[in-house]
Amino acid sequence: MCELLALSANTPTDLRFSFHGLRLRGGSTSDHADGWGLASYDPDGQRLHLYREDAPAAFSPVAAAVAALDLRAHCSIAHIRKATRGVVALENCHPFHRRWRGQEWVFAHNGDLQTLPPLAGGHRPIGQTDSEAAFCWILEQLERQGVSAQDEAGLFAALLACSDRLAGEGIFNGLVSNGSWLFAYAGTKLHRVTRRAPFGLVRLADDDLSVDFAAVTQPSDVVTILSTEPLTAEESWQPLQVGEAILLKAGEIVRRRPGRGE
Amino acid sequence: MCELLALSANTPTDLRFSFHGLRLRGGSTSDHADGWGLASYDPDGQRLHLYREDAPAAFSPVAAAVAALDLRAHCSIAHIRKATRGVVALENCHPFHRRWRGQEWVFAHNGDLQTLPPLAGGHRPIGQTDSEAAFCWILEQLERQGVSAQDEAGLFAALLACSDRLAGEGIFNGLVSNGSWLFAYAGTKLHRVTRRAPFGLVRLADDDLSVDFAAVTQPSDVVTILSTEPLTAEESWQPLQVGEAILLKAGEIVRRRPGRGE
Repeated sequence: MCELLALSANTPTDLRFSFHGLRLRGGSTSDHADGWGLASYDPDGQRLHLYREDAPAAFSPVAAAVAALDLRAHCSIAHIRKATRGVVALENCHPFHRRWRGQEWVFAHNGDLQTLPPLAGGHRPIGQTDSEAAFCWILEQLERQGVSAQDEAGLFAALLACSDRLAGEGIFNGLVSNGSWLFAYAGTKLHRVTRRAPFGLVRLADDDLSVDFAAVTQPSDVVTILSTEPLTAEESWQPLQVGEAILLKAGEIVRRRPGRGE
Repeated sequence: MCELLALSANTPTDLRFSFHGLRLRGGSTSDHADGWGLASYDPDGQRLHLYREDAPAAFSPVAAAVAALDLRAHCSIAHIRKATRGVVALENCHPFHRRWRGQEWVFAHNGDLQTLPPLAGGHRPIGQTDSEAAFCWILEQLERQGVSAQDEAGLFAALLACSDRLAGEGIFNGLVSNGSWLFAYAGTKLHRVTRRAPFGLVRLADDDLSVDFAAVTQPSDVVTILSTEPLTAEESWQPLQVGEAILLKAGEIVRRRPGRGE
């Protein structure tokens, strides 16, 4: 399967520290060596920067160059891939991207779907993954239901219904963003940590690397990180419940459907 | 508009030297600063490596990392973009890629098409460019005509007919590859140089950089480079005639339709 990583923040924030940790799991500290991707938006959420490569993230000089970029965003999504369906190829690397209703939408998936609802043809996959097909299906559903890109409640309900349906077809942990909000669904496994003042020293679990967030943040900063497995050693990562879905804006949970554990 | 670069060689050859020169035109020695892309295949032509970014190639650390990769291929296509149609965004960066009949097809375009033949829907563009739509239309035509991916004569004839049609709609200089051959069409401007023994010192036109190809080649090597504008100072680049089309395999022209100048 794969590992997911995402960020939601109330001030444009880079994902470098977390992406460095995730990257090492792409072939070094773990075996997710079949590709990687990073989607990040401009601070205004309008323009998307997307990097993907079908090479082990841990040893890729391109991933190293991307990890060093100063990409500050309110929303970012990253992914490292261990192929279960579809060959090792660029078109099968997450995050996937489509332009929908004038916005840049990205999607990343951890899991494995046994079957998929049929596609009407409005959005077609380029590659062979169940994940990209699921993304195309989600966009078709939003279009069919006439959901407005501005209707946050309607979008959350529609994304939740799609995710529940997909989770019934196999393993579905999913991330969706349009640059202004981040939707996350935990079918089986997803962790969350929110950083806010007082900030302190944080150490990566996968490398001897620490950052003193107090030195690089403002007291008003709020940053939430989502990750398949906790990325840092001492912070209190919260596991999302099975079936839990959240909508994040500016680092805070603005909508939530509890999971089965509550 | 844009600048095109492509390589066809009889031994897996990297495009580093030429890509370095092209890259400088992406914002430094020229103003093609709206994105860049490089498509290269594994030596067996089966697997595609594709890198694209919506940033000026000349100043991008990611482009620098890609330029340093040892990507040796029989076919490669690169592109730097100056947006005429479609916003500055990743989905509008060339080369475009689709999987067709089990092969990885890539396409890059220099020009501007005023109108486009209608698409039946078999292949849909992700972005907004005339170029990606033209690529989708070309693949639809090949499919509609039942051209076999193994029939080289049929493919050349079909790609030529498509290119003639597109050249009638505006400016069309196009490159297509499936990893084993490279098709090139010069609607207005494309240059070609073929390097073979005896190899010598070659100097970039856009930078103070030379390579002694005698030191990095075998006497049997044949490498053809296509480029919108000549990339080196002393070599004898041949302009393709207006309307000229060629099919390259292993560095040699295996099929050709003369242009209007002959």
